[in-house]
Amino acid sequence: MAPVDHYLAIDIGGTKLAAAIVTGDGQVIHHREVPTPTATQEQAHLVTGALTELAADVAGELPLAGVGIASAGPIDTARGTISPVNIPAWRDFDIVDAVSDAVGGPDPVLIHDSTAAALGEHWLGAGRGSNALLGIVVSTGIGGGLVLDGRPLSGSAGNAGFIGHLTADPAGERCACGRTGCVETGASGPAMVRWAHANGWTGHSTPELAEAAAAGDRIPVAAFRRGTDHLATGIITATILLDLDLVVIAGGVSAAGEVLLTPLREAVSRDSTPALRKLRIRRATLGRHSGLIGAARHAQGH
Amino acid sequence: MAPVDHYLAIDIGGTKLAAAIVTGDGQVIHHREVPTPTATQEQAHLVTGALTELAADVAGELPLAGVGIASAGPIDTARGTISPVNIPAWRDFDIVDAVSDAVGGPDPVLIHDSTAAALGEHWLGAGRGSNALLGIVVSTGIGGGLVLDGRPLSGSAGNAGFIGHLTADPAGERCACGRTGCVETGASGPAMVRWAHANGWTGHSTPELAEAAAAGDRIPVAAFRRGTDHLATGIITATILLDLDLVVIAGGVSAAGEVLLTPLREAVSRDSTPALRKLRIRRATLGRHSGLIGAARHAQGH
Repeated sequence: MAPVDHYLAIDIGGTKLAAAIVTGDGQVIHHREVPTPTATQEQAHLVTGALTELAADVAGELPLAGVGIASAGPIDTARGTISPVNIPAWRDFDIVDAVSDAVGGPDPVLIHDSTAAALGEHWLGAGRGSNALLGIVVSTGIGGGLVLDGRPLSGSAGNAGFIGHLTADPAGERCACGRTGCVETGASGPAMVRWAHANGWTGHSTPELAEAAAAGDRIPVAAFRRGTDHLATGIITATILLDLDLVVIAGGVSAAGEVLLTPLREAVSRDSTPALRKLRIRRATLGRHSGLIGAARHAQGH
Repeated sequence: MAPVDHYLAIDIGGTKLAAAIVTGDGQVIHHREVPTPTATQEQAHLVTGALTELAADVAGELPLAGVGIASAGPIDTARGTISPVNIPAWRDFDIVDAVSDAVGGPDPVLIHDSTAAALGEHWLGAGRGSNALLGIVVSTGIGGGLVLDGRPLSGSAGNAGFIGHLTADPAGERCACGRTGCVETGASGPAMVRWAHANGWTGHSTPELAEAAAAGDRIPVAAFRRGTDHLATGIITATILLDLDLVVIAGGVSAAGEVLLTPLREAVSRDSTPALRKLRIRRATLGRHSGLIGAARHAQGH
């Protein structure tokens, strides 16, 4: 029997730092996470310390076949640095060297967390068999990653797939990014809740909004319809440009299931472009480990 | 001295069919083209005959290292078939088998003509060194091709890069494709001339419009500004989604030079997305052989 390869996978986000050992066939056999320390740029060592301690602890003395780092963006794969919007402590932070120093072993590879999630789903989840996959994470923001011709698409610096900031409605709301009418201004969980509040709904959270929409409440249903219209515009744009065959939806809001998927499929099918004919839209299946699994896959050379 | 490799390259368009021998280092050493026969689907043999005669003539008795076919879309790379919009005689036409039967040699590879043009520019033209290139052909229509991480991007069936039919203006003109406000409705040569006519300009052709715009005539200048605004919207969308570092503009309208490029760069720079900071926009340098050169490059395994 061939020995089992072990990969160290790291997933860096604004809320938590996660690390795991992932086997060559994608089993997550050791997983640990810690909250991302809140810190200024002057206190960067607090975040760096938490991450390197976590990585070293998970790696232990295990011989590693590879090390994959998934990170919130923006990232720079050529330089091996990250500047995650929600981790202000790190700006142009040299994550590849930091992890390499902490755990030794093979040189770490760096991938955007949204791209890693898409790659994970392509390898072992709902994206299997796709030749042109867009993975979308619908959560407090909207991220996206591309796996084209079987390979994760990096773009010039690793930030390709940024579907949350495609324009969905040029006459729409101002986005936190400074532009107007981004997909995210309609389709993120907070955006749907905000719109529902402005129209008289008195509930509190995205899960509550999804539950109310499932029960047929008018305003929540309309909030999901507006959100999925925004998301559909981004999906249509990406499909025309990239000849996609599959979209996989992950993230907290995807827990809404058909409340999200049914109006999304309807909105996409209203567009007449032939490129959409073969497009399927599915819910992700790997759950919260998709980024770690994708990071490990990337470390295998994919 | 190593022997010179010879590739047969074919470029299929609605106006002309072209074939050439391209050497391993990209020299076009034998080139011939014929007008594309006008024919119905029942007369498909007229087009097929013209193409296979041309291919066999150019190939001659030369031992071929590879055969690359660039074609107007839509194409289906998995099935080796093409259905070019402007060649109604061919629908799901098995071009790969037809060329293979005509010239023998290695199995032909199929690539979209816009992708081939981008790949050619990436290899030997204005796209050299780019990690994430969009090539745009601005002509009677608007085509596009992508070369990402050094590889031509196919998408699920070969039609990725379709930038002419991204939405530039949701409240805009109806497009021939059936959708509304496509980039092509503002930025193609005929679209700019049509808009100028509607606003009182009395000239005739795109080159004439470009000349008048270069001389500062108000309506022609405004027609180019409207066209480049449409094109900029497509470029911005593609850059956000794909983390592009370079756009190369080819096609008949690119002969307008700075009349096109200056307002295009201005329109792109009005957008605030950080993804645009490193984007450069250049004019193509390979001229009308870019598709043949790209097809030969694709036959080399790129």
